[in-house]
Amino acid sequence: VGRARGYRQANLVVLPADTATEFLAYCAANPAPLPVLGVSEVGSWAIPSLASDLDVRTDLPRYEIHAGATATTVDDITDAWRADLVAIALGCWFGAEGALAEAGVRLRHVELGIQGPLFRTNLPTNPVGRFSSNMVVSMRPFATDQVERVRTITGALPLSHGAPLAFDEPLQLGIANPASPDWGEPLLPEPGEQPLFFACGLTSGLALSEAGIDFYITHAPGSMLVTDHDERAAA
Amino acid sequence: VGRARGYRQANLVVLPADTATEFLAYCAANPAPLPVLGVSEVGSWAIPSLASDLDVRTDLPRYEIHAGATATTVDDITDAWRADLVAIALGCWFGAEGALAEAGVRLRHVELGIQGPLFRTNLPTNPVGRFSSNMVVSMRPFATDQVERVRTITGALPLSHGAPLAFDEPLQLGIANPASPDWGEPLLPEPGEQPLFFACGLTSGLALSEAGIDFYITHAPGSMLVTDHDERAAA
Repeated sequence: VGRARGYRQANLVVLPADTATEFLAYCAANPAPLPVLGVSEVGSWAIPSLASDLDVRTDLPRYEIHAGATATTVDDITDAWRADLVAIALGCWFGAEGALAEAGVRLRHVELGIQGPLFRTNLPTNPVGRFSSNMVVSMRPFATDQVERVRTITGALPLSHGAPLAFDEPLQLGIANPASPDWGEPLLPEPGEQPLFFACGLTSGLALSEAGIDFYITHAPGSMLVTDHDERAAA
Repeated sequence: VGRARGYRQANLVVLPADTATEFLAYCAANPAPLPVLGVSEVGSWAIPSLASDLDVRTDLPRYEIHAGATATTVDDITDAWRADLVAIALGCWFGAEGALAEAGVRLRHVELGIQGPLFRTNLPTNPVGRFSSNMVVSMRPFATDQVERVRTITGALPLSHGAPLAFDEPLQLGIANPASPDWGEPLLPEPGEQPLFFACGLTSGLALSEAGIDFYITHAPGSMLVTDHDERAAA
C-alpha cells in the first residue's frame, strides 16, 4: 500500500446526481468518518479545487464499479462514465499518519508495511435518507505515553478523521475479537501500548452497500485519489 | 443583532435539489467562506444532526425568499416550501467570536453593539458550475499584540471560517475605501490596532444572486439558524 507522501489523498465515491445530494447530506451529518474534500459538477470528472488537472475517470490506479450486487475492479472508468454522475472526494487517514510520522510518533503498522485492522462497529452514524450504516473504524496501537500527543496532533486534522474516538476498549464498540478485523490485517497492542480507534472513510462503502444504491463507483482499496493539497493542512 | 451564546449558529440556504448538488460542490471547493454544517434530505425541513427538533420553515426569526430579482422578507416559509427543496446550513463567524471573547480578546464591534463592516473583495472563489462570485469578507480591528492569539484561536475553528486571510491591507483585497463597507457598519482600526479579514458566509448570498438562480431562500440578516452544537467545538 504505497502512498504519495506530502499530498492529501482521498476516498473517491461516484454517484448519480439524484443520489449524490442525499449522500452529501449524510456526509455533512457525519463529518468524522465522511469529511467532504471536494465535489464535481454533475457530469464532470474534474474537481479543480482539489487537483488542477484531475480526471477521476483515469487518474486512480484502480476502481470498483458496483452495479446491483456485483463489484467489478477496473483501471479506468471512462467507459462507465455517464452525464448524470457526480464525483465526491472524502478525506482519508493518510494525512494524520503523515503528521504523526513527522512528529516522531511510532506507527507500528507502517513499520510492518500493512494498513492495519479495520472494524465494523456497533456505533450508529447519523442517518440521512437511505444511508444509515454503522461506523467503520481503524484500530492503531500507540505507546501509552504518546497517546496524548496522538490526540492533539490528529485532533487538529478534521479532514483526516480528526481525533480518535472516545473509546479505548474494543468491546465498547462491539468488537468481540480484535484479532479478527473485518478489513485489513490484524495488529494487536503489545505491552505498553494502547489501541486507539479512528473514524474511517470506509464507512462510505458500507453505507452505500447497505443502502441498496443500484450503481456507484469507488476507488479500489489502497488506490486513492491524490490531490494537490498539503496533507498536513488543517482545512 | 442578538445571538444565542454557546450554541453554534448557521447561515441557511434553501435550494431546489437540482441546484443543491452544484451549490454543495461550490461549498466544498470553498470551505473557508462556505463550511457545510448540515444538509436536509430532499423535501425535508429537518436536519436532525444539527438540532434534534429543527424545522427550518418556522424556527428562524426571518427569512428572505428570492424569486427572480425580487426578495421578500417573511417570518415563516411554510407556504413557500416545496417537495424539491433542500436546506443547507453553513458555518458563521459567531463561534469564533465566542471563543475570542472567552479568551479575553477585545472585540470592539461587540462593545459597540454592531456587526462590523463586510466587504466584497477582488478575491475570486473557486468556481463550480454557475457559482463563481468574489469572496465577501468581514474586517475586524484587533490590538496589534493580540493578532497572533486571534490567528491561533480562529485557526482551530474551520467551521467558523477559520484563521484570518493572509492579507492585512484593504487594497490587497481591492477594498478602496475601508470606511465604506458594502454591508454592515463602518469600523476603522484605531492607533495600535490592526485590521484582520475573515472569509464570510455572505459569500453564499452573493454567489446565489450572481448565478441567476431563479428561486432560493436564505435567513434574513442577523436571523441565523441556531443549532444544538457547542459553538467552540472544532468539528
